[in-house]
Amino acid sequence: MTETTGLHVDGAGSWLVRARKEVSYEVRVRDNLFRPDRSDLVEIGSDSPGGRRRVVVIDGNVDLLHGERIRAYFDHHAVDCAMVVVKADETVKDLATAARVAEELDRFGIARRREPVIVIGGGVLMDVVGLIASLYRRGTPFVRVPTTLIGLVDAGLGAKTGVNFNGHKNRLGSYAPAELTLLDRSFLSTVDRRHISNGLAEILKLALIKDRALFELLAEHGQVLLREKFQGRTPIGDTAAVAVLHAATQGMLEELQPNLWESELERCLDYGHTFSPTIEMRALPALLHGEAVCVDMALTTVLAYRRGLLSEDERDRVLTVMAALELPTWHPLVAPDVLLQALADTVRHRDGQQRLPLPVGIGDVTFVNDVSAQELEAAAVLQRELSETRFRRIAAGKCV
Amino acid sequence: MTETTGLHVDGAGSWLVRARKEVSYEVRVRDNLFRPDRSDLVEIGSDSPGGRRRVVVIDGNVDLLHGERIRAYFDHHAVDCAMVVVKADETVKDLATAARVAEELDRFGIARRREPVIVIGGGVLMDVVGLIASLYRRGTPFVRVPTTLIGLVDAGLGAKTGVNFNGHKNRLGSYAPAELTLLDRSFLSTVDRRHISNGLAEILKLALIKDRALFELLAEHGQVLLREKFQGRTPIGDTAAVAVLHAATQGMLEELQPNLWESELERCLDYGHTFSPTIEMRALPALLHGEAVCVDMALTTVLAYRRGLLSEDERDRVLTVMAALELPTWHPLVAPDVLLQALADTVRHRDGQQRLPLPVGIGDVTFVNDVSAQELEAAAVLQRELSETRFRRIAAGKCV
Ligand SMILES: NC(=O)c1ccc[n+]([C@@H]2O[C@H](COP(=O)([O-])OP(=O)(O)OC[C@H]3O[C@@H](n4cnc5c(N)ncnc54)[C@H](O)[C@@H]3O)[C@@H](O)[C@H]2O)c1
Ligand SMILES: NC(=O)c1ccc[n+]([C@@H]2O[C@H](COP(=O)([O-])OP(=O)(O)OC[C@H]3O[C@@H](n4cnc5c(N)ncnc54)[C@H](O)[C@@H]3O)[C@@H](O)[C@H]2O)c1
Repeated sequence: MTETTGLHVDGAGSWLVRARKEVSYEVRVRDNLFRPDRSDLVEIGSDSPGGRRRVVVIDGNVDLLHGERIRAYFDHHAVDCAMVVVKADETVKDLATAARVAEELDRFGIARRREPVIVIGGGVLMDVVGLIASLYRRGTPFVRVPTTLIGLVDAGLGAKTGVNFNGHKNRLGSYAPAELTLLDRSFLSTVDRRHISNGLAEILKLALIKDRALFELLAEHGQVLLREKFQGRTPIGDTAAVAVLHAATQGMLEELQPNLWESELERCLDYGHTFSPTIEMRALPALLHGEAVCVDMALTTVLAYRRGLLSEDERDRVLTVMAALELPTWHPLVAPDVLLQALADTVRHRDGQQRLPLPVGIGDVTFVNDVSAQELEAAAVLQRELSETRFRRIAAGKCV
Repeated sequence: MTETTGLHVDGAGSWLVRARKEVSYEVRVRDNLFRPDRSDLVEIGSDSPGGRRRVVVIDGNVDLLHGERIRAYFDHHAVDCAMVVVKADETVKDLATAARVAEELDRFGIARRREPVIVIGGGVLMDVVGLIASLYRRGTPFVRVPTTLIGLVDAGLGAKTGVNFNGHKNRLGSYAPAELTLLDRSFLSTVDRRHISNGLAEILKLALIKDRALFELLAEHGQVLLREKFQGRTPIGDTAAVAVLHAATQGMLEELQPNLWESELERCLDYGHTFSPTIEMRALPALLHGEAVCVDMALTTVLAYRRGLLSEDERDRVLTVMAALELPTWHPLVAPDVLLQALADTVRHRDGQQRLPLPVGIGDVTFVNDVSAQELEAAAVLQRELSETRFRRIAAGKCV
């Protein structure tokens, strides 16, 4: 059939409806986004009869640290702004928080298409606001300003939104990209060191399954990135920050674009996301998202090593870099029953198969469907042993 | 640019992500869907290792009236079924009901793509389950079996899902069509007369702005359709039922298909849906959805008449048919302040303009943006006068 969209009627009382949706969005690097001469956030959307009106949903901590200059920016540009301040962290990533934001959109009386909601915050707030924007009047445009490292290199780049539900990570969500994401690394200056590590975990994920050069950058410059928080306080730190952020953004978008709605369930970006959703939710709030992902990656690195997919040297390099990035390489929840439950839920999520991404050396990936309980347990035992003896998380240069 | 999808990188630190989603779904007429020899509901989706498993979400009233044969059907076909019975009407069309359904999906442990959720019920249940299916793991397929007339000719056909929120009709929702809708008019045998009228209102809407022949069918056979509840108890009633259902389905799909995501906000199907969302929610539970739509259509018919868009004769024919279909042609909430608030909210919904569909004669439509408070008030006064003197709702053959 050449005509792919249209209404196809069959005499016997059946109609086939075919339609096509084109989606496009932009991700733009813009340092110092809120400097008064910047216009990115003013240009997007259009005016209403009363002038330029916007709802700005902002993370509570970001508001404390950056709220003043953000308000000054919108004042300067004469934008009639409702600032909605939301406490956002993993424990309140839920429908109730989403509903609160929706009430604020009602209160403001937002127009359906011309007044994009602006969200300024980390992965949690972007996911929650993205979800509610995608549902509000069945879809209200929004703009993302990520303020954490996870936000900059991951949560701010794709189409996924979501909230946790019924004890399950991101159980409810949608595919709805922001029309524009603005990447301003200056926000990272106020992010604490642990949350920089946390973001480095998602960059490491990408490196491990796709980009060996990025892995080498992390291995070489991880410490300076942590120390300088990507602010480029030294020339070498600046070069590293720009290179790592660029490679992460580029690599992530290359993977996301052809599979925006995840019609293909074998996703290399799911690396580190097989066991971690369950571990993260059970550990809540002890493990951050990237930390849980790293625990999963350490496990699957060991598992891949046991299968001969990477050498002992490669395995140890990976675990060394994890520890150097101050990420955990093991956690007490890496226990047989938790792993099996996690795997069962992931199998449902991947429609009946494991589709487990495993690293092949450093920088490549394969998918397997035959991981057994025994194999998992053996890998977990080795992971624990390696972690406790040699790859303890190094915090601020010291072992913990 | 010839390449419309892909990742477009601009050296200055900007990426443009373009992607395309193809959607297709089927609407199939199938009388006596639950007769044991029917296989439509068994064929869709695929098996899991444990066999064929399905979650069936069913309206409480439908379960009372038809549950036994539905359970027998799934038993007969050896489908391992979780029947989730939900009380569904406009007053519980909310996030809490949607969340309850999501918990049941968790409890069942549904696979992500192969085990479509089956929803059997009216517009409310289909909208709620459609919403939660579209969110559950960011999208779980579902199949609709509408059991009311509104369901058969409207709510079961398009892509819209939704719940009421914060006092607003369908304030949160998504565009997510069921992969299959199965139309079985035999369910209408147990629908009470008032809900048949209610569904006739949405058919009348389509007739008024698009299909004069359908209007004539309603004018001629409205009474027999009401009496026989589309069951074809007489040859003439059967012919009329089949013709009206076919024309309604065809017409609705013709309008929906090219604008499935409502990128075009001038929608003739929005006729009757400008003032009615507010009226319906304020009157809740006194007015049914189709009744509120009819009150809106009566107002806008009179308004169109006052503009010379239809003649006095046409106006009176329309109001006569409304009354004959036992639908209200006026309501005390048709008051200036309510109408203006409703219009203001609709203007936000239509992104800053009224885009008000008005009938042109019978069977055609135009859109206007210049309705004033004065004009609305004058139309409402005339509507009330006509309604009270000549077009009172006729219930079961008697004026009420
Ligand atoms: N949608 C996606 O594709 C995607 C991808 C990866 C991760 N995620 C989600 O992102 C979440 C994790 O993101 P996160 O780590 O940004 O979490 P987060 O949003 O909870 O932010 C972490 C903490 O940092 C604070 N904060 C934010 N910006 C700050 C700043 N500039 N200075 C100081 N403090 C600041 C926040 O208040 C919060 O307490 C998880 O829920 C995860 O599921 C989503
Ligand atoms: N998504 C869409 O495109 C769309 C289109 C039109 C209407 N709608 C929505 O549909 C809703 C109205 O639909 P509805 O009128 O079907 O309401 P409904 O679902 O509330 O059903 C009406 C009543 O009939 C009962 N019922 C259902 N099937 C029955 C049967 N076979 N026998 C006896 N009783 C039965 C229900 O329990 C309920 O009490 C509104 O919320 C409206 O917004 C949605």
